[in-house]
Amino acid sequence: MAAATAEFAEHGYEAASMRAIARRAQVDPALVHHYFDGKQALVAEVVEVPLRPERVVREALAAPIDELGGRLVRAVLTAWDSGAVRPAAVAALRSAIGQGPVARMLREFLRREIMQRIATALGDADDADLRAELAASQLVGVIMVRYVLEFEPVASADVEELVWRVGPAVQWHLTGSPETGA
Amino acid sequence: MAAATAEFAEHGYEAASMRAIARRAQVDPALVHHYFDGKQALVAEVVEVPLRPERVVREALAAPIDELGGRLVRAVLTAWDSGAVRPAAVAALRSAIGQGPVARMLREFLRREIMQRIATALGDADDADLRAELAASQLVGVIMVRYVLEFEPVASADVEELVWRVGPAVQWHLTGSPETGA
Repeated sequence: MAAATAEFAEHGYEAASMRAIARRAQVDPALVHHYFDGKQALVAEVVEVPLRPERVVREALAAPIDELGGRLVRAVLTAWDSGAVRPAAVAALRSAIGQGPVARMLREFLRREIMQRIATALGDADDADLRAELAASQLVGVIMVRYVLEFEPVASADVEELVWRVGPAVQWHLTGSPETGA
Repeated sequence: MAAATAEFAEHGYEAASMRAIARRAQVDPALVHHYFDGKQALVAEVVEVPLRPERVVREALAAPIDELGGRLVRAVLTAWDSGAVRPAAVAALRSAIGQGPVARMLREFLRREIMQRIATALGDADDADLRAELAASQLVGVIMVRYVLEFEPVASADVEELVWRVGPAVQWHLTGSPETGA
């Protein structure tokens, strides 16, 4: 973990490699792969969050495209609501918002493993990246209000109520037809 | 300012009073009122943000209710895009997300001066508080992605493009008719 932390700190998430982490730890790369199934797993260990956000999103993205909004809201809130996940996830989000090498690692991780996965699910639309980021912005906003700022009534709202209230906003970003007003 | 900082730290934003701040500073309350037009002005000074969020929101809320979504997005992004505001506003948001007395003060300020103003604009609907918070969650999410995480393409998107893409999502929270799916 010390080797992974140092490698992510020096090169960020995208440029870090399992091979370089193994070299730093003076072990065979196969050993690292044996214990960690990729850089995603190492990030989860480094920030001590018992959650694999890329898996949560990947499962939600298996749904039909017109159901993605609600599925993403349900998947993200269900994961964060877990007592084992929540304090660590809030701490990791605070780190991502801060400055320094951990923030850089987490931001690159979020871009690559969350935003880009959502964008890919939208196919080859010109604005897929923008739509994916705005959908993620709604998810980030609900996470902030519910888990970090802990504002009521959102903090105590039932997950399914938030699915039907927030899902359509996320869906709008993914597949809605905005008018430019031009 | 030292007296205001101490008073907010000890009692939070809602319970702090101009009178108590004056007493702490050993001056007449009229003097405090002469220089600061209320607790909102003192918060802006304490966190050194050259912006009065409650004014930004109040002006946007003067619009007809079916235009509020786009108006809020435009007002918030235009305020944050200002070079004089942005670094201080990002620092204040980081403080609000952290722990300790400044975080508590800022959260109470946001609840009282932003969320409650939006909820009041929605009239006496049973779910006005929930709608106002979810609308604010979308605004907070865009602020996070554009100004704190600085993810592209949202970070460099034109304000008017975000108005027509994000405005309808905010409007949905304020006045949309979600189906419970029940």
